[in-house]
Amino acid sequence: MNFAVEIDIMPLKGLLDPQGRTVKEALQKLGIEDAQDVRIGKHIHMIIAADNEEEARRKVEKALETLLYNPVVEEYVYTLKPHQS
Amino acid sequence: MNFAVEIDIMPLKGLLDPQGRTVKEALQKLGIEDAQDVRIGKHIHMIIAADNEEEARRKVEKALETLLYNPVVEEYVYTLKPHQS
Repeated sequence: MNFAVEIDIMPLKGLLDPQGRTVKEALQKLGIEDAQDVRIGKHIHMIIAADNEEEARRKVEKALETLLYNPVVEEYVYTLKPHQS
Repeated sequence: MNFAVEIDIMPLKGLLDPQGRTVKEALQKLGIEDAQDVRIGKHIHMIIAADNEEEARRKVEKALETLLYNPVVEEYVYTLKPHQS
């Protein structure tokens, strides 16, 4: 069974996000003066195979915790749904 | 009125995504051999002010088209919802 996984890995709230700050300033120059809380992170899409949703979640969390995200400066959310292959 | 905007900017399907390829290979070394279609892009979060949803969408699309994404190599999706400030 295949699952489509969509992961967002974002800088922790309250941490300096220089990329977000740069985009906020660029938006102001475009006339979008009122953007707040601009934060820029990563989006990861993948399709994984697993026998069931629980196994799929275990795989995704293993990948996140050993490879994809840094808990000191980032947080993540992900969604997972069955995928027709 | 404030809107929370969540934007995903991803490499176009079919284009080489070297970052995605690297992650796919690293996942294989972790024992997650079956990841397919691994693609890595950007996730942007922001809060913007607008009189209504239509104006909010105009602002987001202006930001995307003049600043945030490159239509030659990327595609985007975004969601927007009212945000309590």
